[in-house]
Amino acid sequence: MSQNVYDRADFFDEYIKLSRQIKGLEGAAEWPDFQKFIPNVKGKKFLDLGCGFGWYCRWAVENGAVEAKGIDISENMLAKTKEFPPNAAITYERADLETLDLPPQTYEIVFSSLTLHYIKRLPELVKTIAKSLRPGGSFVFSAEHPIWTAVKNPYWIEDADGESVWPLVGYLDEGTRIRNWLADGVEKQHRTLVTYLTILLDAGLQLSAIEEWGPGVELIKEMPVWANERKRPMFFFVRATKPL
Amino acid sequence: MSQNVYDRADFFDEYIKLSRQIKGLEGAAEWPDFQKFIPNVKGKKFLDLGCGFGWYCRWAVENGAVEAKGIDISENMLAKTKEFPPNAAITYERADLETLDLPPQTYEIVFSSLTLHYIKRLPELVKTIAKSLRPGGSFVFSAEHPIWTAVKNPYWIEDADGESVWPLVGYLDEGTRIRNWLADGVEKQHRTLVTYLTILLDAGLQLSAIEEWGPGVELIKEMPVWANERKRPMFFFVRATKPL
Repeated sequence: MSQNVYDRADFFDEYIKLSRQIKGLEGAAEWPDFQKFIPNVKGKKFLDLGCGFGWYCRWAVENGAVEAKGIDISENMLAKTKEFPPNAAITYERADLETLDLPPQTYEIVFSSLTLHYIKRLPELVKTIAKSLRPGGSFVFSAEHPIWTAVKNPYWIEDADGESVWPLVGYLDEGTRIRNWLADGVEKQHRTLVTYLTILLDAGLQLSAIEEWGPGVELIKEMPVWANERKRPMFFFVRATKPL
Repeated sequence: MSQNVYDRADFFDEYIKLSRQIKGLEGAAEWPDFQKFIPNVKGKKFLDLGCGFGWYCRWAVENGAVEAKGIDISENMLAKTKEFPPNAAITYERADLETLDLPPQTYEIVFSSLTLHYIKRLPELVKTIAKSLRPGGSFVFSAEHPIWTAVKNPYWIEDADGESVWPLVGYLDEGTRIRNWLADGVEKQHRTLVTYLTILLDAGLQLSAIEEWGPGVELIKEMPVWANERKRPMFFFVRATKPL
């Protein structure tokens, strides 16, 4: 079974204080840009891998999806989904994405937000996703950018001019990284951007759109404390399509 | 007209001392890996943009290309091609890639090595390339990796533990970078990896293969001085395909 940090009390107690858990999608700074990657959900079947509190499943059904299914490994997460009004079009299931099984040719949209950088057996998962998509369907995901996952110490340092620079090392050496984020000993899987793309192509998907995301110039005017975040991307988004 | 640093004596006098100019393709450490991106050239028409001394055109014809054409902006470069035995299948032309015109539906393979990071009007050039490819044809190129072109000072610095780290800044802010490489004031164009990919998709090409390249673990055993080069990629390679 894969790491399930969300069911560790020390982690979860901190996690639920994040802006994106309190405010939902409005608390996720990347959402206005990431949302554009998702095809129109109206009349479609939507699957969310690593669904957390179910924000994206509810969003999909509010926007016309006929069915939204959320999968997560965490009991804590799935318990939270019950605090929202039930909707017959939404179902949740507890399952491990490392060994996931999905029905073939079922979904028009498979979605995943900031989850895949925890997965070790990503090639197998993406093949499973590709099979579960209908022809013409899309796999849309975000993940932590490899420039972020690569480094030994994810903290800014100063160069000789006193400018904050991101201390990049380890980019080409893939594997597990241990992070102390919200709690100690969180495991992430570092892969290069190209490895993510090659996994998609090897599963028979086509690249349709990609973005390396950091806060935009306008957002930094509102939040000057984020200025460093344009120096290296935080996340990346992909839309990959199953050929007709 | 675009920057033509190769016709500046101060730059060119240093440039011709590089291993890859003296030894040809055997002096280019990335060539064994990059070569795998090029489809079989046998019986094909091959175009090299930024052909330099003509190493790749000669390689293509030696490997069975029926025609190889090299284009470069530099008189110095094209003069060098005349120091090699002439071959009726190879032609060279002096032209500016910023304003290039190409015949439509002509080439099976359009190739470019470490040139595109000098080009300002890259979207226009890639559209021209896409039109000049035959259906099923490939555009294969290498370029300096954006992690390299982004930074203000392309030199390793030490972190608090004394480890050499790459001082990444400026990744999301695209535009001209001035480098003192071989000579002062060399202009390069920084674009994110995703901007390169989006330019290809917008021109109607499909992503077929991509690599972020640094020396492999075996190469570093032979050349320990290169160990830092695995900390961040130097180059990237792409093969993009024109749909049938």
